[in-house]
Amino acid sequence: MGDSSQHVFDAAIALEAGATPGVFSGTTHPAWANMVGPFGGITAATVLQAVMQHPDRLGEPVSYTVNFCAGVADGAFEIEARPTRTNRSTQHWFVQMRQGGEVVTTATAVTAVRRETFSSLEHAPPPMPEPDSLPRGFAPRLEWPRRYDMRFTEGPLPDVWDGREGTTRSRLWVRDAAGRPLDFPGLAALADVFFPRVYVRRARTVPIGTVSMTVYFHADSAQLAATGAGWIQAQVEGQVLRNGFFDATAQLWNRAGDLLVTTNQLVYYKE
Amino acid sequence: MGDSSQHVFDAAIALEAGATPGVFSGTTHPAWANMVGPFGGITAATVLQAVMQHPDRLGEPVSYTVNFCAGVADGAFEIEARPTRTNRSTQHWFVQMRQGGEVVTTATAVTAVRRETFSSLEHAPPPMPEPDSLPRGFAPRLEWPRRYDMRFTEGPLPDVWDGREGTTRSRLWVRDAAGRPLDFPGLAALADVFFPRVYVRRARTVPIGTVSMTVYFHADSAQLAATGAGWIQAQVEGQVLRNGFFDATAQLWNRAGDLLVTTNQLVYYKE
Repeated sequence: MGDSSQHVFDAAIALEAGATPGVFSGTTHPAWANMVGPFGGITAATVLQAVMQHPDRLGEPVSYTVNFCAGVADGAFEIEARPTRTNRSTQHWFVQMRQGGEVVTTATAVTAVRRETFSSLEHAPPPMPEPDSLPRGFAPRLEWPRRYDMRFTEGPLPDVWDGREGTTRSRLWVRDAAGRPLDFPGLAALADVFFPRVYVRRARTVPIGTVSMTVYFHADSAQLAATGAGWIQAQVEGQVLRNGFFDATAQLWNRAGDLLVTTNQLVYYKE
Repeated sequence: MGDSSQHVFDAAIALEAGATPGVFSGTTHPAWANMVGPFGGITAATVLQAVMQHPDRLGEPVSYTVNFCAGVADGAFEIEARPTRTNRSTQHWFVQMRQGGEVVTTATAVTAVRRETFSSLEHAPPPMPEPDSLPRGFAPRLEWPRRYDMRFTEGPLPDVWDGREGTTRSRLWVRDAAGRPLDFPGLAALADVFFPRVYVRRARTVPIGTVSMTVYFHADSAQLAATGAGWIQAQVEGQVLRNGFFDATAQLWNRAGDLLVTTNQLVYYKE
């Protein structure tokens, strides 16, 4: 687990600060290639990384919405992160990613200084077989899924695309395949790890594209440090597919059963 | 049901276009007062209304995230809506609401031209007694809840604030008390109609404030026209409360059982 060279995740989200504060430049990384352009999760992580690296950041991310405005092309990009409002313990952000002067991604984020309060887990992780007892799934023809070790217990990617009726729920164990410990950009990427609900619902591939993803971070950095590179228990469900758009609602828990992330996305589909 | 004068909802979200395209001015309305300042739902509706009234808008809202950066003060405000990216059938928006030159609310929205496709409801409405058989609940000391007729079947606002342990789920029927038919701003407001999960979980009031709300619109305007001012079946649950922030995840169905909206929010709480 782990290695001495830079992890490909860190290489992909690496940003160089420019002359203007909050403006960064970067380049897409081939290890995270999707069918066309990079995996949405790595884009989400990279855009969040601009907030993480901003010199004026207050606190840690609690809420993050990323909008995929257009396909990100392989190559160079620029990200501009700007605080829109800074309060005593919360801060609001607007972020844009551009390529060739065109906006390809926008995001808003809320960072906050957390304080210890009454806490309660209301959505416990479902019982699932141990990850080590399960085969590694999702044999990838694509590049980015090779970056994750996924062990499905329900709703895997169909073996046969025969158009049979399925449900929209998937359950799996997942972790970084090279043992990179989780941090906030790592969680943002993991929130997008689920393949499209319409694929498992219909056992059929149709053109799709996430238009917006919202991530609520319930973990703080202490909880992430305790989670490390361990297995994450993940569940995702679609609530409705209707006239070109479907949703997916998901949870990520660590081995201790802490709910690290709740996340939702809206996805365009054709046909 | 209904009246010939302007509904207080329309009065509250009324915007006047300024000299600069996409810049609007408005004023908070006393009928929607919360404990301090206006109900978050009416702010969400008003910010979305700036997108609805923008002369360059393409299609109807499908995704909407509103960030409550600071308390909105009673009085005048300015809203600036700007398309960040316009594609062939989708359009991305960034919106800011300002008071006295300070940003109080930000939002991103995606509007889209929908096409008829394979559709499937995966999250059906739960069985609930008929609304007319239930008493009108949530006797309001505040102004804004009087704008809605709410009939709870589960998880009402506690009668006694005795600190007993509860769950975070509420189920209710809800409709505009004056019979205003639903439209997209109306749905955005309704997405914020649920009182704070921490109140019902703990039978105790603590200071709270929504920091971000995301609304996915699965309904199009034809479905909204069919829904009219009829009863909406609503369910909300909190998945976790942890160190100052809790989430709420909710669904809104019409009487025909169509899932009009799925929505999530992250709420700050103290203690």
